[in-house]
Amino acid sequence: MTIRIFITGGTFDKSYDEITGRLSFKDTHVPEMLRLGRCRIPVEVRTLMMLDSLEMKDADRELILANCRSAAEERIVITHGTDTMTDTARVLGEAALPKTIVLTGAMVPYAFGSSDGLFNLGSALSFAQALPAGVYLAMNGRCFAWDDVVKNRALGVFEPRRG
Amino acid sequence: MTIRIFITGGTFDKSYDEITGRLSFKDTHVPEMLRLGRCRIPVEVRTLMMLDSLEMKDADRELILANCRSAAEERIVITHGTDTMTDTARVLGEAALPKTIVLTGAMVPYAFGSSDGLFNLGSALSFAQALPAGVYLAMNGRCFAWDDVVKNRALGVFEPRRG
Amino acid sequence: MTIRIFITGGTFDKSYDEITGRLSFKDTHVPEMLRLGRCRIPVEVRTLMMLDSLEMKDADRELILANCRSAAEERIVITHGTDTMTDTARVLGEAALPKTIVLTGAMVPYAFGSSDGLFNLGSALSFAQALPAGVYLAMNGRCFAWDDVVKNRALGVFEPRRG
Amino acid sequence: MTIRIFITGGTFDKSYDEITGRLSFKDTHVPEMLRLGRCRIPVEVRTLMMLDSLEMKDADRELILANCRSAAEERIVITHGTDTMTDTARVLGEAALPKTIVLTGAMVPYAFGSSDGLFNLGSALSFAQALPAGVYLAMNGRCFAWDDVVKNRALGVFEPRRG
Repeated sequence: MTIRIFITGGTFDKSYDEITGRLSFKDTHVPEMLRLGRCRIPVEVRTLMMLDSLEMKDADRELILANCRSAAEERIVITHGTDTMTDTARVLGEAALPKTIVLTGAMVPYAFGSSDGLFNLGSALSFAQALPAGVYLAMNGRCFAWDDVVKNRALGVFEPRRG
Repeated sequence: MTIRIFITGGTFDKSYDEITGRLSFKDTHVPEMLRLGRCRIPVEVRTLMMLDSLEMKDADRELILANCRSAAEERIVITHGTDTMTDTARVLGEAALPKTIVLTGAMVPYAFGSSDGLFNLGSALSFAQALPAGVYLAMNGRCFAWDDVVKNRALGVFEPRRG
Repeated sequence: MTIRIFITGGTFDKSYDEITGRLSFKDTHVPEMLRLGRCRIPVEVRTLMMLDSLEMKDADRELILANCRSAAEERIVITHGTDTMTDTARVLGEAALPKTIVLTGAMVPYAFGSSDGLFNLGSALSFAQALPAGVYLAMNGRCFAWDDVVKNRALGVFEPRRG
Repeated sequence: MTIRIFITGGTFDKSYDEITGRLSFKDTHVPEMLRLGRCRIPVEVRTLMMLDSLEMKDADRELILANCRSAAEERIVITHGTDTMTDTARVLGEAALPKTIVLTGAMVPYAFGSSDGLFNLGSALSFAQALPAGVYLAMNGRCFAWDDVVKNRALGVFEPRRG
């Protein structure tokens, strides 16, 4: 069983630019993270875009959906910025593909030693193997169905939708 | 849903002793790793022992089994040295408790920046939530049933039992 | 011999804010870095300000100078943003205090595992012990007199003044 | 001014062997550390040996001395295990070469994220530039003349010779 990993950017992959002193995107850190985790699951990694998720547009989400649909693999992990992760999850969830799709990300860039990204990547790859077809968010040890999750921006955590 | 985490030692938790220049056990790193991963799943952590798994005896495995049996939680993660992880898994598997028990560990001490431990911990906590009752090994992104796994010592990886 | 360390901010001490996704200042990392380096030189650390050096004003530089003047110690290390480090060095250099003052900083925040900050801190504390009275910049293994150094912003490195 | 760096092994350069679970020597980490520290001083690195300093013999010390003598550079840094660093310093010191030679090492392997090695390397390269001809030990921010230093093995620190 091969897992497809689609990279879309987000905090997960932000790097520090020494010249400008700002955070920006260079290459994805996912291959390095898989090496560090000594990942033994066969994966295919493809970068679809490198965006802060606040800048992601409808067309970007359609592109992600199209790639999920056409992928040969039935199990997919998507790295994504946390700010609009639930929006992309909704687009994918409403498409109801016969695949297990898990979105994940990080609260802290992986390039910072203190990132939660490696923990989340291990978690997302595991939920992607164990769960039935559907669209999920895996963050910080928890897993949410796409239609039962919101981001609490004040606390920086994901929670089930209330009421 | 609270997950019980039992610590038993292993490479996962080895520290470097500056005075002797050797690897040894001090306190477990698991709470720090959960903090780093910003883990939002309720967990209860208990250290049962701090052993290199080559030094683990039958009585130690019985102690681990007894703790799994008496734990209030139905989902349990056990950190364990890799050398005899399959032996402990067998003891737990044959007991056929109505619980989901996932053993995990690391090929490199967490205290080394290059450890696979954080990735594995995220993975084990996820499989523990998603899988039905049974005993499993979660290492480097893969998950094995207790009765279908061996450690390939030459390569330092876990594999399905052949034939 | 005690070395006085004055903290003024700069890239050195920037942290990642998980809620806003931006770099900002919280507490200084210098005490943690001294612990990590197992520093055995007696030091006294005092935070004067926490500024991006582009925002540093004349009054801030006068405050740094006043603190260098009134300090009981004759050997002083100052952590400082790189963008205007040479400006502060000039204010201190022209005051011609009978003290050894070494400014240092980092191209990458210490909170990023890949920072040059720890290397630079070890270097600055060493030059502060070994050099005669004067004002110096210590960055990336090199040491410059305050009146013979410029920052090459395109490359992000310090160089001797030409011609 | 180019600084010559001789590698001899020691805790500084120990790696973790995933198969055996022991600390051992592979390649030196010094070039990676110089990259991390964004070192701008021209250096020439040469590995003379890869030894735990407890296993270093008279012939090894003579080899180090011969290399210091024949090096084109007048400023030399030597990475060395801490257990017999003072013995090698004595051999070099008694030879009274007209060069500045600084021995350094680490209490914790660099491969452990928590190493003091990067701090010490920055320090040693700085003392090597600033001090007159002589043989010195630079450890944890302090610098000792070769004939006025002992290792306190109980505490794992270097101290001036008493009385």
